[in-house]
Amino acid sequence: MTDTPTLSQTALTDTVRDALKTALGPKGWSEDASELAPHVEDWRGRYQGSTPILLKPGSTEEVAAAVKICAEASIAITPQGGNTSLCGAATPQGEVLISLKRMTRIREMDVDNDSMTVEAGCVLETLQGVAADADRLFPLSLGSQGSAMIGGLISTNAGGVQVLRYGMTRDLVLGLEAVLPDGSIWSGLTGLRKDNTGYDLKQLLIGAEGTLGIITAATLKLFPRPARTELAFIGLDSVEDAVTFLGLAKRLSGNAVTAFEILPRIALERVLEHVPGTRDPLESPQAWYVVCEMSFGRAEGARETLEDALGEGFEQDLIKDGAIAENDTQAKDFWRIRESIAEAERAYGRSVKHDVSIPVSRMAEFIALGSQRVTDAFPEAVVFCFGHVGDGNVHFNFASPSPGEAEAFMAKAKEISAIVYNTVAEFDGSISAEHGIGILKREELARLKPVDVAVMRAIKTALDPKGIMNPRVLLTQA
Amino acid sequence: MTDTPTLSQTALTDTVRDALKTALGPKGWSEDASELAPHVEDWRGRYQGSTPILLKPGSTEEVAAAVKICAEASIAITPQGGNTSLCGAATPQGEVLISLKRMTRIREMDVDNDSMTVEAGCVLETLQGVAADADRLFPLSLGSQGSAMIGGLISTNAGGVQVLRYGMTRDLVLGLEAVLPDGSIWSGLTGLRKDNTGYDLKQLLIGAEGTLGIITAATLKLFPRPARTELAFIGLDSVEDAVTFLGLAKRLSGNAVTAFEILPRIALERVLEHVPGTRDPLESPQAWYVVCEMSFGRAEGARETLEDALGEGFEQDLIKDGAIAENDTQAKDFWRIRESIAEAERAYGRSVKHDVSIPVSRMAEFIALGSQRVTDAFPEAVVFCFGHVGDGNVHFNFASPSPGEAEAFMAKAKEISAIVYNTVAEFDGSISAEHGIGILKREELARLKPVDVAVMRAIKTALDPKGIMNPRVLLTQA
Repeated sequence: MTDTPTLSQTALTDTVRDALKTALGPKGWSEDASELAPHVEDWRGRYQGSTPILLKPGSTEEVAAAVKICAEASIAITPQGGNTSLCGAATPQGEVLISLKRMTRIREMDVDNDSMTVEAGCVLETLQGVAADADRLFPLSLGSQGSAMIGGLISTNAGGVQVLRYGMTRDLVLGLEAVLPDGSIWSGLTGLRKDNTGYDLKQLLIGAEGTLGIITAATLKLFPRPARTELAFIGLDSVEDAVTFLGLAKRLSGNAVTAFEILPRIALERVLEHVPGTRDPLESPQAWYVVCEMSFGRAEGARETLEDALGEGFEQDLIKDGAIAENDTQAKDFWRIRESIAEAERAYGRSVKHDVSIPVSRMAEFIALGSQRVTDAFPEAVVFCFGHVGDGNVHFNFASPSPGEAEAFMAKAKEISAIVYNTVAEFDGSISAEHGIGILKREELARLKPVDVAVMRAIKTALDPKGIMNPRVLLTQA
Repeated sequence: MTDTPTLSQTALTDTVRDALKTALGPKGWSEDASELAPHVEDWRGRYQGSTPILLKPGSTEEVAAAVKICAEASIAITPQGGNTSLCGAATPQGEVLISLKRMTRIREMDVDNDSMTVEAGCVLETLQGVAADADRLFPLSLGSQGSAMIGGLISTNAGGVQVLRYGMTRDLVLGLEAVLPDGSIWSGLTGLRKDNTGYDLKQLLIGAEGTLGIITAATLKLFPRPARTELAFIGLDSVEDAVTFLGLAKRLSGNAVTAFEILPRIALERVLEHVPGTRDPLESPQAWYVVCEMSFGRAEGARETLEDALGEGFEQDLIKDGAIAENDTQAKDFWRIRESIAEAERAYGRSVKHDVSIPVSRMAEFIALGSQRVTDAFPEAVVFCFGHVGDGNVHFNFASPSPGEAEAFMAKAKEISAIVYNTVAEFDGSISAEHGIGILKREELARLKPVDVAVMRAIKTALDPKGIMNPRVLLTQA
């Protein structure tokens, strides 16, 4: 397993360019600079790239035709969905760019099977609506859902706010269709819940960031829509108490906890200061806060279940204060605090950010030790960590001490991140909980997981011997 | 992707044999015929095999040492857990046999993280008990749980009776440790819920039937234990009505349905005839029956939820008759009918058996058409299908017309199976829902899924270039 994936550097010739144009027809390509511009830069403006041609296939067969032409000529390809990657995985650096944005068909809605088969270019928000129209829930839910496309979400195994109950994107996919690096079509679309017929190729493509093939369609799991959702805003002394209360809430509610988000006092203060119309839901200040959501299949007993859990939390001295949303407006106010943290963070200054995960049981210890180490080395750093503590996923950020010191502080980003990632490794955590590797973290991955990367390289070389599928992404060049 | 896995045929030399004995020590091997006997035959007696030596490593390091010695000498290996395979995947045919039975440590119970890390040789029933002692549920549950070991259950992605709510074994594994075909140790043990760092190697090893490495330990997901379980025995006119009622029951209960097993009238009749102490729970005979279990995190409202679902089922004319278990004894009686079907089937005569799955929504149509086709070709065949209809998994069996005609009927097995498998393919179903491929179905898999098998071969060759890991299993020799 020491093979190294080839990095295809072959330039696009006029012959190949013409072959691609002929295969996809006039609607299927563009060389217009203004049309290309938004596709060759990531949405946060951190990665700038280029492409000789933008391909816009309208069907799986057209994707296959384009990949076959590129494969035969050893031309590298970058696939792109809604271009909402946070790690640079969808920004071409001279590769042929294949956008899936024209592939937006809902191929099948199978209500009795709780599944739907959709094409890669469907926008997540659209799919949530299609599911709701069929009285079903497609639970994947995240900030970029208005533009993120399902093919990209699957390729990066996206997370979001409902992972605690419904899992990552990986857990929501029943079947896939993909074009493999040689241009052949792999038809793995299936609505089956049980299928024990060899290696799970679908799971290999999920999270592969386009390096093993281009996902063209997927069969997705649907769920019953909850009849009632209840929300509480809770004040606590420590992360440890929050984790203990989470266990209690899961048990007493019969696993009804669908979100469990933590924030420190400083995050609430910044929100109250910088985001108009927000107010502290509790009367007394607390060290930590949790937004706790429960979802129920039956409305009866829903409120009582949340109340019982909170009651037990007070009884066991885990909770110091708490409020239950009395109506939708209050629920929106509670959620707004959590959702405004990043905005308040930006309004105040800049932060060194880390999307890490840790086993839930070690979260408290990790936050304490990681904070200590960073502030020992950089006493001016302000610990600003918040996030999906129910999943063990924390946005472990460190803010500049004041807005004016932002630039000086950010110069220390690399050293701060090294402390954080080394601490994550000690706690058997992950340096990328939900954002992926892309260009951003490929060196760090190679450093921290050499055996894994060796196996990944062997698989990459076996399935993409010419190294044309999204080269540079995920795996470093050896 | 046209590479063909090599089949290692190298015989064990005395030098290699001695090296293995030295590496594992006196407790770590056996050449005693009586000790070997139960390991070289499968438990149903359908596969007979042989091995030059049985290895019994006591640690991951010892497994790694043994595999490294075999790899260097190109000696093939068969890994074995509890030897409860239904498809011959664990019966050696001359390979060195590595039993994981001495690796039985619970390495860690992490209650707050809802996870436990255990070694491959732990018996499922033991693990269920360990979880219960920590007030948690490990939901994997199946007939052979008294002897099946977790390493084998993971390697075959076992199913069972709780798949509807908790998923297959694949869904219950957070992390894995394995020895790869070159003898290196892959340390993928993790209790993380979110970890987006490249290809999911764990998912590749799950269900690979030991062809890509030997699983030595796993971190498993735990769940809150249900506070209350309710059970109903329901009579209906058709499979179609059962599927419609399933959707209704899932929705009204907030996804609390944990088992939904179907059986036809003839299965009930055979049980009543052949299994002492059973009785029909309903007053009038019905065409089909369903055993429907719901599990709840709170006892309050549990019974009412089941009653409401049944009431709505009657209202919509989906249910013709029904009974709710009033106590544990009645619940056991209802379950006993379902669990005695195979026994009653055997007591009556012999059957041609198929473990297939179909999208839940097409189950009724599939059963009707498949039954029609088989009985058109073989009018004497008695349709005898039952199983996990909630997962789309049906045991689609055909029984001999009378006990005396069993032998003549079984001579037609191959033709009957061909009709069934072709119909399964038309319905986008699977020829192995939960039992796996092993030796039994590898030719059928190669015939029905040639693209998948080509990709699997490429992966196999990349990770096991010498072809020493459980050769002959899952993939045919090209």
